[in-house]
Amino acid sequence: MERDPALRLRVFNLNCWAIRYLSKQRQERIRLIGDRLCQEGFDLVLLQEVWSEQDYSNLKAKLGGCCPFSHYFRSGVIGSGLCVFSKFPILDTLLYQYSLNGYPYMLQHGDWFCGKSVGLLDRCCRGRSRPLCPRFFQLHAEYWREKDTYLPHRMLQAWELAQFIRHTAKAADVVLLGGDLNMHPEDVGIRLLRGWTGLRDAFTEAKRFEGCEDGCTVVPNNCFTIKSELQPFPLGIRIDYILYKAVSSFTVKCEELKTTTGTAPGMDIPYSDHEAVMATLHIQRKGQAAGVTLGTAVPALVDVLSEAQTEVRVGLLAAQRQRYSSGRMAVLALLLLLLQAVAALGALAGLAGGQPFPKLSFFLLAFLALGILLLTAGLHLFHSIEVKMLQGTEEQMRMALRALQERP
Amino acid sequence: MERDPALRLRVFNLNCWAIRYLSKQRQERIRLIGDRLCQEGFDLVLLQEVWSEQDYSNLKAKLGGCCPFSHYFRSGVIGSGLCVFSKFPILDTLLYQYSLNGYPYMLQHGDWFCGKSVGLLDRCCRGRSRPLCPRFFQLHAEYWREKDTYLPHRMLQAWELAQFIRHTAKAADVVLLGGDLNMHPEDVGIRLLRGWTGLRDAFTEAKRFEGCEDGCTVVPNNCFTIKSELQPFPLGIRIDYILYKAVSSFTVKCEELKTTTGTAPGMDIPYSDHEAVMATLHIQRKGQAAGVTLGTAVPALVDVLSEAQTEVRVGLLAAQRQRYSSGRMAVLALLLLLLQAVAALGALAGLAGGQPFPKLSFFLLAFLALGILLLTAGLHLFHSIEVKMLQGTEEQMRMALRALQERP
Repeated sequence: MERDPALRLRVFNLNCWAIRYLSKQRQERIRLIGDRLCQEGFDLVLLQEVWSEQDYSNLKAKLGGCCPFSHYFRSGVIGSGLCVFSKFPILDTLLYQYSLNGYPYMLQHGDWFCGKSVGLLDRCCRGRSRPLCPRFFQLHAEYWREKDTYLPHRMLQAWELAQFIRHTAKAADVVLLGGDLNMHPEDVGIRLLRGWTGLRDAFTEAKRFEGCEDGCTVVPNNCFTIKSELQPFPLGIRIDYILYKAVSSFTVKCEELKTTTGTAPGMDIPYSDHEAVMATLHIQRKGQAAGVTLGTAVPALVDVLSEAQTEVRVGLLAAQRQRYSSGRMAVLALLLLLLQAVAALGALAGLAGGQPFPKLSFFLLAFLALGILLLTAGLHLFHSIEVKMLQGTEEQMRMALRALQERP
Repeated sequence: MERDPALRLRVFNLNCWAIRYLSKQRQERIRLIGDRLCQEGFDLVLLQEVWSEQDYSNLKAKLGGCCPFSHYFRSGVIGSGLCVFSKFPILDTLLYQYSLNGYPYMLQHGDWFCGKSVGLLDRCCRGRSRPLCPRFFQLHAEYWREKDTYLPHRMLQAWELAQFIRHTAKAADVVLLGGDLNMHPEDVGIRLLRGWTGLRDAFTEAKRFEGCEDGCTVVPNNCFTIKSELQPFPLGIRIDYILYKAVSSFTVKCEELKTTTGTAPGMDIPYSDHEAVMATLHIQRKGQAAGVTLGTAVPALVDVLSEAQTEVRVGLLAAQRQRYSSGRMAVLALLLLLLQAVAALGALAGLAGGQPFPKLSFFLLAFLALGILLLTAGLHLFHSIEVKMLQGTEEQMRMALRALQERP
């Protein structure tokens, strides 16, 4: 069989922190990012947190020469913030929205509003005897580790992501996942993702590495990071990843991994509050097709899955409690309203000896009861969905565990 | 190469219309359905609108002997209503929720609350030299054709469904889609789905057919159907489908297709307000792997895609209008509230010569303004999501059209 020449693929990944009106020096940083990308000519650029479509359009205009193909994933109220620039044509895209995504009433976290999702992209590398079709997944997860009420949602997302990749990756030659996963390398979510999909971490696999110590992507010497959040981690944390695997008859190796280190070269500000991750991958066709493999030995994978299932179960119990208490509150508010309606009708019909309450307090009370009713009914609805989704995830995990344990 | 013996796969599909407190003779019909399934011993049973998990559990207990493996897809507030029973082990499941799903304020339609989605199921048929892995998709769409405001949502769902099948089907040997698609065979959504995925309609492909005329699944002589809705269609309508295709080195043929015809055999009531569809498929391994094909010739597919894109664009314009008008209303309500707050503060500070309005009307007005503000802000949020998703879909379709037109 004739051997294809190898393909070198240079990938750039950055969480841009480009929130209109909120992110510091946003426009300047977007301009700097554009300049850097033009200079270096990456094959594939994955950007997260580009919340303003205007920023995307500016980047698109700037990168027209080196990365003529691009896509912006739309979802949620604000958008997904995900966009991709590519040197080669983008053939197809698909967006998968997580079924749970934080709480709509946690306005300050904003997760619910941005419709967190994973984008899938089919690309075609031309100029080869047979076009190579890498498939890219890109995502962005918002939660901070400290907010542990979100842990079950994060676990559900890690599971849904892993399942989505497993089910859609088989048709590709090479799979690449880039993004801000907001999980540390040893977290159960990352271990689940790697184990269940067989994806390999570019940082641990790279032949050469250059950049922040331990590959950290949120570091204390970046002037935009919040120092208090990094206190338990003096070196910083690694939460932005490039993961990859070869699916069919290819091999992928990571030749080099780099991160930026606080400030943009020759400038006094960094590109973002995260460091960019840049990988050079070496893709080559090999003789025979590889079988489907799991990323981790079965017993280790069973442990990770059990751990994740426990987290989901804990979240399920909490969601059931919240569903119950919001439902009870809604019923109480409804009863109060009904009582008031009866009293008001009684007074109107002249049954009672005049209105027992002053009118103002009566109306204020009705107003309050109605407000509580609407709020708690909404909460009840939301937590009902949460319960259903967590139950479904737990059952899927149980099925996967059973299948693993029955493996010969 | 040794030829595997052929596999005969008997599939049962029914929209059960089992809504607790609302569907007539629900428990009796579920019992009848269970009896029939036990008697006939299908290989795969796809049921829709089983909204009560109790009904699912009853069926599961009853079918334990003939279809020991089962799965209930959970989503939304009420659930997805989708469940599957299988003679062979279920290896894996995945649920894909459509990004748009009707309007939460259309309580009477209920679409939004049931989290309409498509379930994916990997099954394994054992006892063969190499296990055959059919992949099943199951879905249920609620909308009536008459409610044409929903048409863009339905188009988006048809597109998302087709994309989901395209991206996940490649790993399977055989793909099977069963469910109540709520679209007539000649509707653009069905043509898009068939054309874009290459799925074939068991009714048109079947060698033998037995059942209602034209394969209709909602017929006038079923005592539960609403006769007025069927007036334009004297024979009934065909909206429940079994679609299939072979992906890898297999061929699939539909030997026989049957529908029930109004009443259950020997009984005076039907199983549901829909007729059941029963297919016997004949699956055989062939020598070489089939290439990836589209279901329709490229020019015809371009036409269908353009038609669908137009529908989406119409919906997008309507959504943009609604987003604008709800936003304007919210701003007006907010202004009124602010005005009232200023008036009240003025009165408190003794600036005005006493309170110009009677207190009660003042509070009622504030109450009204707040109510309108909350409602319209919610609507604005919802229509913003709608706009984003329709924009995203339109762009995906545009990309697909471009790719089709550039095909050599």
